[in-house]
Amino acid sequence: MTKLIYLDNNATTKVDERVLDEMLPFLKEEYANPSSMYDFSKKSSNAIKEARVKIRDFINAKDEKEIIFTSCGSESANTAIKGTLAYNKNQKHIITTKVEHPCVLNLYKQLEKQGYKVDYIGVNSNGVLDLEELNAAVDEDTALVSIMWANNETGVINPIGKISEIVKSKNKNTKLFVDAVQAAGKIPIDVQANGVDMLGISGHKFHAPKGVGALYVNSKTMITPLIVGGHQEKGKRAGTENTPYIVGIGKAAELAQEGLKYELTEVKRLRDKLEKGILSRIYNARLNTGIAERVPNTSNIGFEYIEGELILLHLSDMGICASSGSACTSGSLEPSHVLRAMNVPFTAIHGSIRWSLSRFTTEEEIDYVLDKLPGIIEKVNSISPYQKELQALKNLKTANV
Amino acid sequence: MTKLIYLDNNATTKVDERVLDEMLPFLKEEYANPSSMYDFSKKSSNAIKEARVKIRDFINAKDEKEIIFTSCGSESANTAIKGTLAYNKNQKHIITTKVEHPCVLNLYKQLEKQGYKVDYIGVNSNGVLDLEELNAAVDEDTALVSIMWANNETGVINPIGKISEIVKSKNKNTKLFVDAVQAAGKIPIDVQANGVDMLGISGHKFHAPKGVGALYVNSKTMITPLIVGGHQEKGKRAGTENTPYIVGIGKAAELAQEGLKYELTEVKRLRDKLEKGILSRIYNARLNTGIAERVPNTSNIGFEYIEGELILLHLSDMGICASSGSACTSGSLEPSHVLRAMNVPFTAIHGSIRWSLSRFTTEEEIDYVLDKLPGIIEKVNSISPYQKELQALKNLKTANV
Repeated sequence: MTKLIYLDNNATTKVDERVLDEMLPFLKEEYANPSSMYDFSKKSSNAIKEARVKIRDFINAKDEKEIIFTSCGSESANTAIKGTLAYNKNQKHIITTKVEHPCVLNLYKQLEKQGYKVDYIGVNSNGVLDLEELNAAVDEDTALVSIMWANNETGVINPIGKISEIVKSKNKNTKLFVDAVQAAGKIPIDVQANGVDMLGISGHKFHAPKGVGALYVNSKTMITPLIVGGHQEKGKRAGTENTPYIVGIGKAAELAQEGLKYELTEVKRLRDKLEKGILSRIYNARLNTGIAERVPNTSNIGFEYIEGELILLHLSDMGICASSGSACTSGSLEPSHVLRAMNVPFTAIHGSIRWSLSRFTTEEEIDYVLDKLPGIIEKVNSISPYQKELQALKNLKTANV
Repeated sequence: MTKLIYLDNNATTKVDERVLDEMLPFLKEEYANPSSMYDFSKKSSNAIKEARVKIRDFINAKDEKEIIFTSCGSESANTAIKGTLAYNKNQKHIITTKVEHPCVLNLYKQLEKQGYKVDYIGVNSNGVLDLEELNAAVDEDTALVSIMWANNETGVINPIGKISEIVKSKNKNTKLFVDAVQAAGKIPIDVQANGVDMLGISGHKFHAPKGVGALYVNSKTMITPLIVGGHQEKGKRAGTENTPYIVGIGKAAELAQEGLKYELTEVKRLRDKLEKGILSRIYNARLNTGIAERVPNTSNIGFEYIEGELILLHLSDMGICASSGSACTSGSLEPSHVLRAMNVPFTAIHGSIRWSLSRFTTEEEIDYVLDKLPGIIEKVNSISPYQKELQALKNLKTANV
């Protein structure tokens, strides 16, 4: 097998072996339907109960009854957003941000067609949310505020506690949904301390498999279910429980909780090393977020005057995986809506690369990237149509030293 | 480990080892997000393509583009039903049956509250659908007819081809959704030959894991997606693809297709042996479906004048798993809506047991049940409050011999 250096952990992560080990019995001999009544189903139903407690603790929910297992982060978001709006049909105003995940933005585009008014709060050039704009937007008609905890492309963290305070002080009935898909496992999540009504997470972003998520809905928030049918998940999500994956996301949450300190120190150290290494070695590299507060594993770096797709192709040839944005929109050639909202210069947007590390990233891997990347960028620079601008930038950076 | 005789395969099935073997690489080293652009994701995206072709062939769809992967049968049904109604808002009449799965019935109860008129077609005492009632019900306003291919409790097969002819002859614009969750893997499924517009299946009913389903939507049928977001599944179902389970349902479909002959001969032989053995050994047993056409693995037998829950408890003590109805409604003490629609006598409904076999059921297991069951029934009979009726039934059956 060829070398694989996986620096795209915001797209998905490797399933932790300890997670798979806990799942395997439920993919083999413990195959009972957890809703069945006989003894054979007890291990499955108990395993789901334990997983629910682990998710409760992971996000510091008050009660495990507030946790609904779903099939993915998108389902969590759709359930929370459509579910709260369907339950409360009187208010027609929604607030979100310009930099939300495409999943959420596409849903809002659909809701606009159904007569909802949606305000999209902007960010500054480092990707930091404009809280004054948010404060001005909340009014009596605001049913829902939906804001991500951390951005998938930049890693920038939103101050959820402060956001909740602003929202609730303007309208105490407005519900706050937080898409925490990119925050879970990277920074501490505490729904109670931060005044969160609903919160969505996705297992495969923290070393559980793809195909399982969870949705927190606090006991004061009512939703109409998205998938109607059987009595599973207290009637809030029909469908035979996916025992193996539910066990998996529970174990992954436990490991993520235990590993938070490692994320905040060692993963961050490697991310910072990568970042500083790139910025010091490559004159047309720019850190798109500046000094904004970010999750410890993510770095978004623009390579000015060149094409990101070409950089990624060269990286892929060397077994290095990174990306130019969300995998959910990959294949489209439109520049990132997140970087556009930040007003990143046109000449840097197209050459922006997201690097995202995980607990499995090694120092050797970072050294390898720092060794290979300058050559790749030099090669791509050499065929850029912006030779004059590149030369000017080089002169500027050299003069700085 | 104690003996386990699993005769509840309509609730869920054991994952076939050959299915798990194909899944495992995608739970281990092949963890790429299939939507990513680098080489590392190719194996995952190709594996999903192959699985889609396998599902296409399994149900004889014209084009694999007509297959949408979902997280379960309930999601497939919710997507098809809500999706087609949301796309076509002018027609407000729906037809279904009194014996549909609770998932579908609960959804229709919700739609009635939203202003839809729903007709519930009845069945005869063997569980066979009343086609004349169906014919009379379809009119110009009928948006959707939603009928299961085979019933989960009785195994009774609906003549989908004939149903489609009736529906389309009355209103060619009416869409036909078929819940084939209990038919897939047990009888041949051909959506083209049977005039099906949409069809849902669930992997865990045919030896794939719990947590994956598929929805067929033919190219002439438009739906609004249930889970809105990323571009996955051609924009019809957002969420990072669950590569391991999609590979699993593909392999399970391939195996089910190859194994159909075994189902229709050997599984049927064992089911018939169980059925005849029970009916000949136990005087208060009745075959609730009579000679109705059924899937080969299912038998629904009423034990008159006694409580099914008590029988199941004794069976569970001996390691035998069977059920009194759908696992999705288990825990509720309400008698089966399916047997009530069939007008099964009150005194038999409460003692009705569903036996459902699979390719893993052995002759020894059937012999064991036939050996143990008469003693269990005798014990439960002895504490029945209906001693007079039981004696009369015994005399009647003995006289018959």
